[in-house]
Amino acid sequence: MKNTISEATRGVYIISPTPFTDTGALDLEGTDALVDFFLDKGVDGITILGVLGEASKLTPDESNAFMLKVLKRVGGRRSVVVGASNPGTDNLTRFAKAAMDAGAAGLMVAPIQGLKHDDQVYGYWAEVLARLGPGVPVCYQDYPQTTGVHTSVAVLNRLIDDFPNLVMLKHEESPGLSKITALRAAAADGSRRRVSILVGNGGLHLPQELRRGADGAMTGFAYPEMLVEVCRLFHAGEVEGAEDLYDAYLPILRHEQQMGFGLAIRKEVLHRRGALRSAAMRHPAPRLGKVDHVELDGLMARLERRLAAMS
Amino acid sequence: MKNTISEATRGVYIISPTPFTDTGALDLEGTDALVDFFLDKGVDGITILGVLGEASKLTPDESNAFMLKVLKRVGGRRSVVVGASNPGTDNLTRFAKAAMDAGAAGLMVAPIQGLKHDDQVYGYWAEVLARLGPGVPVCYQDYPQTTGVHTSVAVLNRLIDDFPNLVMLKHEESPGLSKITALRAAAADGSRRRVSILVGNGGLHLPQELRRGADGAMTGFAYPEMLVEVCRLFHAGEVEGAEDLYDAYLPILRHEQQMGFGLAIRKEVLHRRGALRSAAMRHPAPRLGKVDHVELDGLMARLERRLAAMS
Amino acid sequence: MKNTISEATRGVYIISPTPFTDTGALDLEGTDALVDFFLDKGVDGITILGVLGEASKLTPDESNAFMLKVLKRVGGRRSVVVGASNPGTDNLTRFAKAAMDAGAAGLMVAPIQGLKHDDQVYGYWAEVLARLGPGVPVCYQDYPQTTGVHTSVAVLNRLIDDFPNLVMLKHEESPGLSKITALRAAAADGSRRRVSILVGNGGLHLPQELRRGADGAMTGFAYPEMLVEVCRLFHAGEVEGAEDLYDAYLPILRHEQQMGFGLAIRKEVLHRRGALRSAAMRHPAPRLGKVDHVELDGLMARLERRLAAMS
Amino acid sequence: MKNTISEATRGVYIISPTPFTDTGALDLEGTDALVDFFLDKGVDGITILGVLGEASKLTPDESNAFMLKVLKRVGGRRSVVVGASNPGTDNLTRFAKAAMDAGAAGLMVAPIQGLKHDDQVYGYWAEVLARLGPGVPVCYQDYPQTTGVHTSVAVLNRLIDDFPNLVMLKHEESPGLSKITALRAAAADGSRRRVSILVGNGGLHLPQELRRGADGAMTGFAYPEMLVEVCRLFHAGEVEGAEDLYDAYLPILRHEQQMGFGLAIRKEVLHRRGALRSAAMRHPAPRLGKVDHVELDGLMARLERRLAAMS
Repeated sequence: MKNTISEATRGVYIISPTPFTDTGALDLEGTDALVDFFLDKGVDGITILGVLGEASKLTPDESNAFMLKVLKRVGGRRSVVVGASNPGTDNLTRFAKAAMDAGAAGLMVAPIQGLKHDDQVYGYWAEVLARLGPGVPVCYQDYPQTTGVHTSVAVLNRLIDDFPNLVMLKHEESPGLSKITALRAAAADGSRRRVSILVGNGGLHLPQELRRGADGAMTGFAYPEMLVEVCRLFHAGEVEGAEDLYDAYLPILRHEQQMGFGLAIRKEVLHRRGALRSAAMRHPAPRLGKVDHVELDGLMARLERRLAAMS
Repeated sequence: MKNTISEATRGVYIISPTPFTDTGALDLEGTDALVDFFLDKGVDGITILGVLGEASKLTPDESNAFMLKVLKRVGGRRSVVVGASNPGTDNLTRFAKAAMDAGAAGLMVAPIQGLKHDDQVYGYWAEVLARLGPGVPVCYQDYPQTTGVHTSVAVLNRLIDDFPNLVMLKHEESPGLSKITALRAAAADGSRRRVSILVGNGGLHLPQELRRGADGAMTGFAYPEMLVEVCRLFHAGEVEGAEDLYDAYLPILRHEQQMGFGLAIRKEVLHRRGALRSAAMRHPAPRLGKVDHVELDGLMARLERRLAAMS
Repeated sequence: MKNTISEATRGVYIISPTPFTDTGALDLEGTDALVDFFLDKGVDGITILGVLGEASKLTPDESNAFMLKVLKRVGGRRSVVVGASNPGTDNLTRFAKAAMDAGAAGLMVAPIQGLKHDDQVYGYWAEVLARLGPGVPVCYQDYPQTTGVHTSVAVLNRLIDDFPNLVMLKHEESPGLSKITALRAAAADGSRRRVSILVGNGGLHLPQELRRGADGAMTGFAYPEMLVEVCRLFHAGEVEGAEDLYDAYLPILRHEQQMGFGLAIRKEVLHRRGALRSAAMRHPAPRLGKVDHVELDGLMARLERRLAAMS
Repeated sequence: MKNTISEATRGVYIISPTPFTDTGALDLEGTDALVDFFLDKGVDGITILGVLGEASKLTPDESNAFMLKVLKRVGGRRSVVVGASNPGTDNLTRFAKAAMDAGAAGLMVAPIQGLKHDDQVYGYWAEVLARLGPGVPVCYQDYPQTTGVHTSVAVLNRLIDDFPNLVMLKHEESPGLSKITALRAAAADGSRRRVSILVGNGGLHLPQELRRGADGAMTGFAYPEMLVEVCRLFHAGEVEGAEDLYDAYLPILRHEQQMGFGLAIRKEVLHRRGALRSAAMRHPAPRLGKVDHVELDGLMARLERRLAAMS
């Protein structure tokens, strides 16, 4: 599969929400428009069925149908990474293989809750990575804010050394800037594989993370074109220019990056921008009130003015 | 459905593990023997597809097949309560209705993680209970040790007042003795429904809980005959005799009640007692080592001696 | 005390770090310069001995000496709020009264860890507020990210109704915008006291919080002049101008607002700006590495350029 | 100091509560009776100023006065271990040295909250143990249920290898039986120091823990004579007899071992047994209600009957 993720992957993998109709049905019909929106903004890949994709609220049939729909629309033009986290390893493995067979570029997996010290974390991953096998490239979602699992640099390095199919880190421990630096230092002398690091958390520290060695972002944000352009400028050496552009979006980015509430905002913005036919989320979910809407009007208008002033 | 759970339900509802073969396949064939074991020990009901049933490691098809198998074997002679907790309310509702249609006596539901103060807890349940509707009796699994959700007596009373289909509390907050007392006091003057309270946590405080107003136990334990006899004696007024019997089992009960590890012990004992063809659990799961087996030999032998001395 | 905090308090109360020398001794001598720096930037008050003040690493004698030094230097020109959170209520009360006797404008108190549902939270505060008594104005530090205590709007309103000495909320639940709106709505018809709300979290959502009814900020930030000016402009009706200024500082603000690490950055910036003679923190504490310093150089330089471009 | 704790320490170190009068004052006068009670029951040592000693609710002067009073009364006949956990390492070190100078046999220290993976845990301890220095024997309180810090066997072994002053583990991770086995295996070939392991958690698994290699118990329990006799019998080779005696106390032991509530019960039993003049705890604290008292009457009476039947 030419679009398979690897250690060399860089750029922007947008985390896609799952589109629902106003009544909460899976909006398969609207999926093409959402995919087109993302591709049109220049993303290098799309990641589906993560936490932000409300994966846990879909039926297995819905997950499968949505995955196939996205894969078909993307048509191999970009990479599609599929979330495969699961409390049971049998279920994880089975779904992972089905996703790869269907054309996924790789899997995003977060560890189960309840893993404590280093050996437990390593042990869980050793089993998962071994079962998936060398042909299945895996992105490690390192997101302790939701999993409660803290992964040390030492554990990551052990896994990188032992499992060639661990090719990417979705870095979203927070604070986590020094972790990127430590990981890059550990691979600096060439004795260890340098895996791809894409950052999450809505990109709240993206410029600093790129400077420290991140390869891009795998995150949700309703203005993916910013992430794309910032990474492009950065990789072209226009580091300060990249950060100037980033700063223009930071006010709305930090507004969207409200944990446990931000997805409602993100879906609303994507709806306003035409990417989603409905901003609906499935219960249980936060819902925007009138004040939230007015506030968002203001932030979006401010962004428009700021971009206009920059051009 | 004559066996439907209600406010008047009392006795022992054993939490059933899900049987697997040594290779981890669902052991549908062995399910009848497990059901027969429980019925033979005199339980009033069986609760399936809870955390102890490794429900989250089954496929939806497996869950359904196991549920149907259990329901068929029980054949209406006892009540079967079905675990229906789900991160998505649509999925919860759909499965719940299917379970009731198939002959379940009621549903066991735990709240989703992340609910904080009283209004959030109430709000979640109000939606779930309203969607399930008055014909679907619900057992509220109050287990903050795993859900992180703490439900106050005030919230429980509000829900009892507002939703007639909330008929039972699976009480396993710990420490939680005073909660039983408070709930019973709140219904003492007849102005509020007195719901059924069955206790969990392996029955670690069962005699005290019965004295405070619990109606029985809904818990896992590899010697369900003790739970049954203790409740019978207690309800027959032989309170101290009930506790004498209980105390004989307490050493092994407290050994089995090791959170996150106890299920491995429980399955092993059930295997030794002929109720399970294999003690296998699905990954991720703890596994008994050689020392664990020897230790269990000792505890089981001590129980035999103690029971022999009592008779 | 004319500077006592009350429901009418608004503006900026800067959370002060505690100055140490390079060897970790309390820098009493340097305290005057730190106080002068804050007063010079126009703050309305200074809050000392909070988490950011490393209060838990001071001896009681050090706490007392630092408090007296600050109070003396401020000399009644501004308000000094003193952190008084304590696992024991006797100790809390004793220190609180000593602080008030010494000239504090009020106390900042966070609830102890381990309080779960609404009645527990209310019960703790009822005892604390009653013991402190009506003459001691209290600021409720609502910071679940560190305390684990989630306080509902319902509980806050009960406390506001029952205890006149609860005059201020240090709001830092996150996400928490809707909480401000709900609190203001609950006091909108005049039937309930409208307490002062000052926001924390480094001011990460300050403009939105002001629009929703916050009265200012009580937070740490190495550029307090921005907080002061934003609040001034906002209260003068120049809402968009306030947010323009805020946005210029947002990149470094969000960098400083890294939970558990940000204080090291803040102390470094305050050191660079001449407010602290040393950036030292007491063990256990994070420490800036070389990359962190270079990164900070860049962010500070970018801020300078941006401010220059605005003027 | 002849009574200093070391790798060879075994037996029972009772965790002492701090006695208060009914009005909450430190009961220094009653301290002698409490010490005498413990010594009379045959304990090998007394551990003071731990969580159960409500240490965080004492003033530094009270802590010091209580410590000196206990040390004086014990008069070198037994060992006194002093709790020295502290959020600040300077404070920890200072108090630790004062305690040793006053005649403490060693220190009990739990790690601060917030340490996540192995290197963080190791790093914290490396600093603390190095600062305390080789002459100060330390007991590592491994109690993740309250600290949130999970210490792996790997980290413990690293610390044992690197710091000779780490001589004892207060083991109370739960479940934790396999941890004892792993630690003993790691020292089995003589290449690593075999440290003392005393178990906590009220002794809820004491017989199993002794069989796996624990050297005794360091825990609170209102009937210390049972712990003493069980350890004596066990070390004399009367293993089953030890467990028979243990089982007689298990019903009340597991009742007392209710986390966050048990201390109120323990103080009440000690009060009833004449060891404490008052069962008072300082706010915030749980309080026994009427039903709790009746329940305790019953459990104490049952114990008396059982002991009578055994003799």
